[in-house]
Amino acid sequence: MRLCRFDDNRLGIVDGSIVRDVTAALDVVPTQGYPYPMHDVLVEHLDRVLNRARAVMPNARTLALDAIRLLSPVANPGKIVAAPVNYEKHRIEATTDPGLHGNNPGSAFNIHSAGLFLKSTSSLVGPGEGVVIRRPDRRTDHEVELVIVIGRKADRVSRADAMAHVAGYAIGLDISIRGSEDRSFRKSPDTYSVLGPWLVTADEIPDPGSLDLQIAVNGEVRQQSNTRLMILGVAELIEMASSMYTLHPGDLIFTGTPEGVSPIHPGDSIVATIAHIGTMAVAVRADRSIDAPAMSTSSAGA
Amino acid sequence: MRLCRFDDNRLGIVDGSIVRDVTAALDVVPTQGYPYPMHDVLVEHLDRVLNRARAVMPNARTLALDAIRLLSPVANPGKIVAAPVNYEKHRIEATTDPGLHGNNPGSAFNIHSAGLFLKSTSSLVGPGEGVVIRRPDRRTDHEVELVIVIGRKADRVSRADAMAHVAGYAIGLDISIRGSEDRSFRKSPDTYSVLGPWLVTADEIPDPGSLDLQIAVNGEVRQQSNTRLMILGVAELIEMASSMYTLHPGDLIFTGTPEGVSPIHPGDSIVATIAHIGTMAVAVRADRSIDAPAMSTSSAGA
Repeated sequence: MRLCRFDDNRLGIVDGSIVRDVTAALDVVPTQGYPYPMHDVLVEHLDRVLNRARAVMPNARTLALDAIRLLSPVANPGKIVAAPVNYEKHRIEATTDPGLHGNNPGSAFNIHSAGLFLKSTSSLVGPGEGVVIRRPDRRTDHEVELVIVIGRKADRVSRADAMAHVAGYAIGLDISIRGSEDRSFRKSPDTYSVLGPWLVTADEIPDPGSLDLQIAVNGEVRQQSNTRLMILGVAELIEMASSMYTLHPGDLIFTGTPEGVSPIHPGDSIVATIAHIGTMAVAVRADRSIDAPAMSTSSAGA
Repeated sequence: MRLCRFDDNRLGIVDGSIVRDVTAALDVVPTQGYPYPMHDVLVEHLDRVLNRARAVMPNARTLALDAIRLLSPVANPGKIVAAPVNYEKHRIEATTDPGLHGNNPGSAFNIHSAGLFLKSTSSLVGPGEGVVIRRPDRRTDHEVELVIVIGRKADRVSRADAMAHVAGYAIGLDISIRGSEDRSFRKSPDTYSVLGPWLVTADEIPDPGSLDLQIAVNGEVRQQSNTRLMILGVAELIEMASSMYTLHPGDLIFTGTPEGVSPIHPGDSIVATIAHIGTMAVAVRADRSIDAPAMSTSSAGA
């Protein structure tokens, strides 16, 4: 099933170009007082939510997919984990382009020595919310990635047992400022983690290690690859992450980006696609709280 | 005031060596359905909670401080931000000791080029929960730090306006595995962010830039310094963090550790003190799910 969140925190089941509003299924998710859970409670109870969604579907309101505003399909991830250099050709571009490597050493571009990193959960948005360029003075790139949504607690899980801990998959954009800072800093501005267009449950993607993925900016394809080229696959990433800390329901693992990363600017229109998941459109906007950012190429000679 | 959380999510006001149980004051914090807020709702409503706590205090149950189990005074931080090298003498030890620097370059040990980093919120515990050594095969150090608790939304706040965004302060332990990985990876295992013993409201600490801090392991003082030696002070750290992303109520900023970091082992007893905040004792335990970790020195010749 394809589960989306949209508009004013509504829950939907996607079926082709329509969405059935199954917000009523959220009644199986408990109401809580302080302190709230530090993981995603909808994903924790995903089977119950989906069962209830099936029950309410016959009477559900139907909407056109292009008439709704898509939010992140996971609202409350406790952690956003990400793989730094998980495609060989991206590793090569990252270590050879001074605009990309920020004078960091080679060890920072080997996933075995660099490990994984965190993105702030405050950076999370859905495709309908778009990306707001926070630092127009800094190079800011798109990175398209397959995202794993963890379904149940994973504490030191072997790669052989890893797949049983996956709830599903989505498309992620790991928007990245280039520079010398820790990845967890320069990849964490508000709106710099885009998740969408929906959560596809794991049963619909038997092999996440053979998915075509691509991203186009203003109609031009910039990144195009296949998840079979990942250095560490889905199971190995879960093994590596859960060796260091416990993963909880709703935790996200951004699996790394292939070659072809390039700068984005206000006004750009991004379209990202992963096979068996779908396509999402994401608008890039200027930050209205920043005065007169001289970003357009036409102002370069001014 | 000194606000603590203890035992089974109870709320207390600390007064010398006693605690008044003001859990009833939590009734001013709203109950929520999914999705839950991504920030700490108690800190967001801190003034109301403290007013209500004052009202219920005359009839509150009184407990001895040494009879309760202290939890993290902030239960739901959205982000744990940390400063990597914010005391000059720690910067020197980190860059000269191969056991500390993990072959990372000098730029990783300059806060201006390294920026800040994130720790996972799943690593957060209170002093009563203790530290569990996750990787006995890796060097794991204590780092004592002053922690800022953000009180209200801070988006691109100048240092001049920063202090108005602070709810209070606590003591933090940034438990750190040494090595080449991203800081956000090797500093994020479960229990590796200790916060306590309580939240001291900002009005009780007019100058967070002149606080003695120290940590002792098994009775031996290992780190002893004063927050006046921080490279970036409290206001500057809020300015730097909020330049990159929005800080929300309950977000924590670990302000960096002074020189004297050293390894900890199961069985160790940590006591950390910061002037005007208090003292907290933290036990270090072995992970019972790891088979026979040969950690004690007596087994070295086996």
